Amino acid sequence: MPQTDPAPSAFDAATAVTRAEGGGMVADLDPGWDVGGGILNGGYLLATAARAAVLDSPHPHPVALAASYLRATGPGRVSLAVTPGPAGRTLAHSSVVLSGAEGPSLAVQVTTATLGTEAPDYALPAPDVPPAEECLGPDSFTSIGGRPTLEVGLRTRVETRLDPATAGWVDGQPSGEPVMRGWVRLADGREPDPYALILFADVLPPTSWALGRFGWAPTVQLQVLVRALPAPGWCLVEARASEVAGGWLDEDYRIWDSTGRLVAQSRQLARAPRPR
Amino acid sequence: MPQTDPAPSAFDAATAVTRAEGGGMVADLDPGWDVGGGILNGGYLLATAARAAVLDSPHPHPVALAASYLRATGPGRVSLAVTPGPAGRTLAHSSVVLSGAEGPSLAVQVTTATLGTEAPDYALPAPDVPPAEECLGPDSFTSIGGRPTLEVGLRTRVETRLDPATAGWVDGQPSGEPVMRGWVRLADGREPDPYALILFADVLPPTSWALGRFGWAPTVQLQVLVRALPAPGWCLVEARASEVAGGWLDEDYRIWDSTGRLVAQSRQLARAPRPR
Repeated sequence: MPQTDPAPSAFDAATAVTRAEGGGMVADLDPGWDVGGGILNGGYLLATAARAAVLDSPHPHPVALAASYLRATGPGRVSLAVTPGPAGRTLAHSSVVLSGAEGPSLAVQVTTATLGTEAPDYALPAPDVPPAEECLGPDSFTSIGGRPTLEVGLRTRVETRLDPATAGWVDGQPSGEPVMRGWVRLADGREPDPYALILFADVLPPTSWALGRFGWAPTVQLQVLVRALPAPGWCLVEARASEVAGGWLDEDYRIWDSTGRLVAQSRQLARAPRPR
Repeated sequence: MPQTDPAPSAFDAATAVTRAEGGGMVADLDPGWDVGGGILNGGYLLATAARAAVLDSPHPHPVALAASYLRATGPGRVSLAVTPGPAGRTLAHSSVVLSGAEGPSLAVQVTTATLGTEAPDYALPAPDVPPAEECLGPDSFTSIGGRPTLEVGLRTRVETRLDPATAGWVDGQPSGEPVMRGWVRLADGREPDPYALILFADVLPPTSWALGRFGWAPTVQLQVLVRALPAPGWCLVEARASEVAGGWLDEDYRIWDSTGRLVAQSRQLARAPRPR
């Protein structure tokens, strides 16, 4: 039997970065990765910027990314300017600025290195969550807070299964604890890698929904740490806010792979949706 | 009785940033804020960079900082280049590069805004820790892992009282959990403010010491979120690693003020000290 190539990954195509004639890099941002209103998801944008950094790095993997979201970004052609910093045998630094028609929209500090799969010396175990097939699929949350979730492109690109213990808001019974957990995987069937983990680091609905505060929570600054190469299969994502105050919200993500290994973390500062 | 001015703050003087003739800004980094070997503390450097960002911002407070530590920084004259980004009514973005004799050593994405003291809508409560006077002062850890801690300048500039529950390593009995808690305040008597919180976001000994892995854990990337103006008095700092693997270590800080209000958070990726 001849081997057939796997179908091209929609995620790989949507985050592809190529060198531009005359220097610099470009990407064509895909309108399908939106979070509503024509605005693209922050993790999707950051994964694209990470590809640009790695293209100009002596090291193969993004391990730390810290991004300021300067303005909302829509689909279409963007340029990516990579400025290399010090590079050594273990790691290299660079900065990436992603610019669209309105000017710079994302500025990122990136550290690249080589990730592995060796057993950790210490790692926080994964929380106890029912298997994906017992969690809530998108049919369970077709409309939340008045917004039809299936019209948000991100939910069709990333399969999401929410832990019922953190999804009371689906039935109008917010838990009062700003915590959300769910299994996620790329809908195109592609197995997770560091770029998918960067996407997953901003993939769940805002934790403020568990406080009954629906609406968009635009990211202001996001840091993602990728800690290991993930095993194939579902990833478990937990998001938790420590404080909602003065119109601001933080969200702390931890991501475990299908073996229960902690493979990524993130923290973001976002503007909080207003109470109703 | 005439009012007398309070003594000038050593912290304010050590982090002072002034405009240079011909443009740009300069600071004179104080050798007293070292962590050994003539290397300055990462939180001290970041507080200095934050002052530069605020000097060029329409908003008064640093609320989010994401820094790449490009190379170790020693004392002496440094330049600070601030590049403003989009600025609005609520917040403004900028980037700051701190450069010494060897070139750029710290690159920071900064968000500025206005912080308040209003009660949060939701906030993680402070952990239960004995009062500062029942915790371990620097006399209890004059030598740790073969390094005389009192010769580390940072410990004389920041009063530190460690929670005995997380300080077993002081007596050669590491807890095995990479968690450290302590009360901190500036030794110069100055009350905390956002710049002090940035300093405190990298102030405890590495959490790997609680695993019996002593030595320096150089910061690679650090994000600090300042959430509110802190009340006067001691601040409670908790640091926690989620994973130690492949020579890397993360540290997650939460900082509460003397009223128990969560006022800052940070997360860093660092190189882990080697096991002995």
